[in-house]
Amino acid sequence: MVNLRVKFSSGYSTFPPVEKEVTKKVSLLNVLLDMGVNLTSICGGKGVCGKCKIKVNSGKEYLNKVTPLEHKQLSPKEINEGYRLSCRAVLESLEGVVEVEVPQTSLLRKQVLQVKGVEKKVEINPLVKKYFLQLPKPTLNSPYSDEDRIINALIDKEGVARERIRFSFPLLRDLPKILRDGKWEVTVTLRGNEIISVEKGDTTNEIYGFAVDVGTTKVAGFLVNLKTGETLVSSATMNPQIVYGEDVISRISYVIENGEKGLEELQKEIVKGINKLILDCCGKARVKEEEIYEHVLVGNTCMQLLFLGIWPQYLAFSPYTPVIRRGISVESEKLGIIGHPRSKTYFLPVIGGFVGADNVAVIIATDILESEKKIMAIDIGTNTEIDLGNKEQVMAASCASGPAFEGMHIKHGMKAAEGAIERVNINPFNVDIVDYVTIGETEPIGLCGSAMVDIVANLYKTGLINNKGTFNKEMMKETERLRKASEGYEFVIAWKKDTGMNEDIVFTQKDVREIQKAKAAIYTGSYLLMQETGIKEKEINKVLIAGAFGNYIDPENARLIGMYPEFPLKKIEVIGNAAGTGARLALISKEMRNKAEEASKKVKYLELGAHKNFNNEYLKALYIPHKEEKRFPETIKLLEKLKM
Amino acid sequence: MVNLRVKFSSGYSTFPPVEKEVTKKVSLLNVLLDMGVNLTSICGGKGVCGKCKIKVNSGKEYLNKVTPLEHKQLSPKEINEGYRLSCRAVLESLEGVVEVEVPQTSLLRKQVLQVKGVEKKVEINPLVKKYFLQLPKPTLNSPYSDEDRIINALIDKEGVARERIRFSFPLLRDLPKILRDGKWEVTVTLRGNEIISVEKGDTTNEIYGFAVDVGTTKVAGFLVNLKTGETLVSSATMNPQIVYGEDVISRISYVIENGEKGLEELQKEIVKGINKLILDCCGKARVKEEEIYEHVLVGNTCMQLLFLGIWPQYLAFSPYTPVIRRGISVESEKLGIIGHPRSKTYFLPVIGGFVGADNVAVIIATDILESEKKIMAIDIGTNTEIDLGNKEQVMAASCASGPAFEGMHIKHGMKAAEGAIERVNINPFNVDIVDYVTIGETEPIGLCGSAMVDIVANLYKTGLINNKGTFNKEMMKETERLRKASEGYEFVIAWKKDTGMNEDIVFTQKDVREIQKAKAAIYTGSYLLMQETGIKEKEINKVLIAGAFGNYIDPENARLIGMYPEFPLKKIEVIGNAAGTGARLALISKEMRNKAEEASKKVKYLELGAHKNFNNEYLKALYIPHKEEKRFPETIKLLEKLKM
Repeated sequence: MVNLRVKFSSGYSTFPPVEKEVTKKVSLLNVLLDMGVNLTSICGGKGVCGKCKIKVNSGKEYLNKVTPLEHKQLSPKEINEGYRLSCRAVLESLEGVVEVEVPQTSLLRKQVLQVKGVEKKVEINPLVKKYFLQLPKPTLNSPYSDEDRIINALIDKEGVARERIRFSFPLLRDLPKILRDGKWEVTVTLRGNEIISVEKGDTTNEIYGFAVDVGTTKVAGFLVNLKTGETLVSSATMNPQIVYGEDVISRISYVIENGEKGLEELQKEIVKGINKLILDCCGKARVKEEEIYEHVLVGNTCMQLLFLGIWPQYLAFSPYTPVIRRGISVESEKLGIIGHPRSKTYFLPVIGGFVGADNVAVIIATDILESEKKIMAIDIGTNTEIDLGNKEQVMAASCASGPAFEGMHIKHGMKAAEGAIERVNINPFNVDIVDYVTIGETEPIGLCGSAMVDIVANLYKTGLINNKGTFNKEMMKETERLRKASEGYEFVIAWKKDTGMNEDIVFTQKDVREIQKAKAAIYTGSYLLMQETGIKEKEINKVLIAGAFGNYIDPENARLIGMYPEFPLKKIEVIGNAAGTGARLALISKEMRNKAEEASKKVKYLELGAHKNFNNEYLKALYIPHKEEKRFPETIKLLEKLKM
Repeated sequence: MVNLRVKFSSGYSTFPPVEKEVTKKVSLLNVLLDMGVNLTSICGGKGVCGKCKIKVNSGKEYLNKVTPLEHKQLSPKEINEGYRLSCRAVLESLEGVVEVEVPQTSLLRKQVLQVKGVEKKVEINPLVKKYFLQLPKPTLNSPYSDEDRIINALIDKEGVARERIRFSFPLLRDLPKILRDGKWEVTVTLRGNEIISVEKGDTTNEIYGFAVDVGTTKVAGFLVNLKTGETLVSSATMNPQIVYGEDVISRISYVIENGEKGLEELQKEIVKGINKLILDCCGKARVKEEEIYEHVLVGNTCMQLLFLGIWPQYLAFSPYTPVIRRGISVESEKLGIIGHPRSKTYFLPVIGGFVGADNVAVIIATDILESEKKIMAIDIGTNTEIDLGNKEQVMAASCASGPAFEGMHIKHGMKAAEGAIERVNINPFNVDIVDYVTIGETEPIGLCGSAMVDIVANLYKTGLINNKGTFNKEMMKETERLRKASEGYEFVIAWKKDTGMNEDIVFTQKDVREIQKAKAAIYTGSYLLMQETGIKEKEINKVLIAGAFGNYIDPENARLIGMYPEFPLKKIEVIGNAAGTGARLALISKEMRNKAEEASKKVKYLELGAHKNFNNEYLKALYIPHKEEKRFPETIKLLEKLKM
């Protein structure tokens, strides 16, 4: 039996190391897919796309020899280092241990949200902790109060400062009964210095927290075991506020028009959405909702105000002042959030303008503020937040990139769920040949954000659109896929017969425009941040692409369409839902929470809307990759090579 | 015009110094009564009772000479020192200044509760404070948050620690509107480090607090200006819980029998009672209820638990453990208490058993814990708390003295209100002559506690009852006032024709028994405290009698019936509602609050119920003054003198 050990090579890997015992002589790709490792494999294991690259660290003697196909796809240096195409590497012997490393760039799809474990190693030190106490019974010689009895035990056990410990009031009401029913053996839950529950017996294993990343379009929730730090289960849903407006400005307008009542509606909607996630996760993990002792939330400043029910009007107008900068802790019950009756909801601090707690979460998850090297982090969403800097200084901006990548305003757009095409390739030699990969490997029913990036990049590479994003009618000669419909030109990605729908899946001229606007916003933000910080492209050592959507995009295609400045690909790292990760870190670590508060003070906010160069830069960035081609020399060189 | 300045000689005086301009040649008694100084005057200004004694410090040249009647009532030493009977001292000239000092012992009646001002001088430093802030408007160059804007201003103004200041959550909801409506000029209310309100404009003058003394039978409330420290108005009412049981044990029994529902009923009743006081005081002082930013409560441990809605069962059984010892601060709204929506109610710490926050309040009002001299403080009520000690050690006990002094279980008993007889004298040479004084000088309708003490003392002095408290039938020969009614022997205090009622006001054999039980409980507590602390009668420098009722009693008569050990009268001082005073002090001074928390830790609790000598001592103390006559040598000497 072969014991296959899998390691992931990125520091931001979302997987813990895993092992599997194998009893059949099959390809490593098959084994890895069986293990839930979602390797890219556009060609379906035929050894021609070269995407399922892995590195064999030990045990290569149990595998077949490197095949001719691999020699074509891999460089001699790579082969020398142990790289193989996993679809071509086959187990020959069934005795021994094979250690395999999977580079992040070979990973594809599967909701990162559903992945267990903590990405970044931090000491498990949550604000909320449980202590099992065996208390001395009161006697006439020691008739001191029930309260003192508990506090003394906590001091003995944990050295907590007596004067600062206090009881959450409502819990005192039944305290005398609980102590006596529990025969003086109880579990006390402390949040900071506050005792928020006293339970009979030893319940120290039942302690959970819930982290939520409130996006403008999507909300993701994570149920975390506060004793082990482990994320048990996660879930995502649309932000139910979306029917009141797709972006932050339109939601604020709704509130201004409808007054307090409108604000209350929006507050209730998001609470309903979060509660749905809580119930879903608790159901899956068989955890009781009242065992959730703390909630931690992140989201942009508008999400913060709407969630807390705070009047958001002034965020939408110059000088775009937030109401609360620091982290705020509110009784979950007061907000309507399901959990322990004395749970609090901590909303992480914000930075300024629309740059909110989600960005603070990205900062603590990526350690930008502690890094020697200069880092750019791009958290792509309906609002895209960008950070640039290192421990010397970090500046942040928010770009209104819109919800296109999340499926909105795109004719066949959809979220990254089963049936969504997530990867598209148009054969540059024959544009009639379009390959695609669908989530869940079912018949396609739409396009998710990563596919949109691939499509625009491919349309441009193949000359189907020009650098203004306009379809090239001439190309209709070469393929039936490009055609004129009632609403204008469109390109067919999947023919009706191959889909799960009653029509062809197409990408329209309008869809191209939507992607141009989105990518131009993100590019402009990145560019102006570089200008304002004085940090040049070359000085940036790492570009981190975050966001649920960011996790699936092809960094090369994204760069090709000009979504961000032209960094070398090796500097680009895809890190998944870093905001969610930051929220989970704040849930399990007080230190990370302190770092978040620090970050909120240290990071400088750049208001793009008020920047004198914004409009000019934005208009130039609408071009593919950019109106000023000299900013994308490598890309232009590649394109010219393709044209030849 | 004579300018009369009045000073009060006791350190525990409940009055501030006062002045009055006089334009008529009248007696000082008349002037003082006009000024609201309630001098004792049993004889109605005839110069025969000797009770209206005052001391003239300067300006005696503007008065008549000392009269022969005064020479009879005052000692040569007193006359030498300037003492006069105020009813006999008449203004002869109307030009000049007369300075008069009124000894506490000459003061009578008038609800102490209604007196303005702070008895004890403390620096006004309440936990809740208001600050008027003029904030810089946000601009694109300083777009920091509304929250930071307020916090920065507070730091500049008051040097408060940034990290510790936090906003009470609900207030944030309208914060952006309030700041802009108020054109960035606002008044911020801080409770400790928590911002609990932000109001438009300058409202620093509107800041009030409410102090409450929750007695088992009576509840007293005080509306206090937190800027000046002044008590504006006060009010008192019966504790509405009384219908559920007259004493703490019967109320706890009610809760045990009726469960959570019963506890909720009792909680709601007391809240209703307190709210009545708040509305009453606010109405009188024309203060809006929402301008009350903090409530401070005192009461015994049972009152504490019932007010907070905490299960009280275990307080009633050995080892009589309280639930919470330390002071506790709860959102007033959560408790149902009227005030500012973010007001908190602080219940002072307790000591142990039934010795509660009311006793802690007495301790901070009387400085026992800072005193070199040894002090005994007796706070008489349905539960009587006694403290004994000095800064070295203080021990406290609680005696179930019952509600007799508050009018309960006494045939014609009533509270100290208009129409209540408060002072009684039976002529020792002719027991048919009974003098009495009525509150409000109206026709009598009942007897208040102080009258009961006078009656029992007089009945005993005149031989109408013996040392077991039994009426002496033989005395029926000497007066028709002693008679046998259907329920046993009784003594007529006021004949029907002189009352405002349809019957004679009498004091029955059963009434005598009730007073015996009450005074025996108090004596036993005092005695056992002396035994346990090892402090002897002679070492005690001061005996402070507190309690609304304690304020009216005649210390000599109280001693004569054996309510407390036989201290020299000059050591006894009547200090009024010291528990209420302590509550008010905690309201206006953080330092006093800290002292209260200290007291709760330092003072030792003596459980009388479990004391081996309690029953034996109590039975001996039922005698008048005591079964062991040698414990009352002076009293016995006096009585023997009277018999001659």
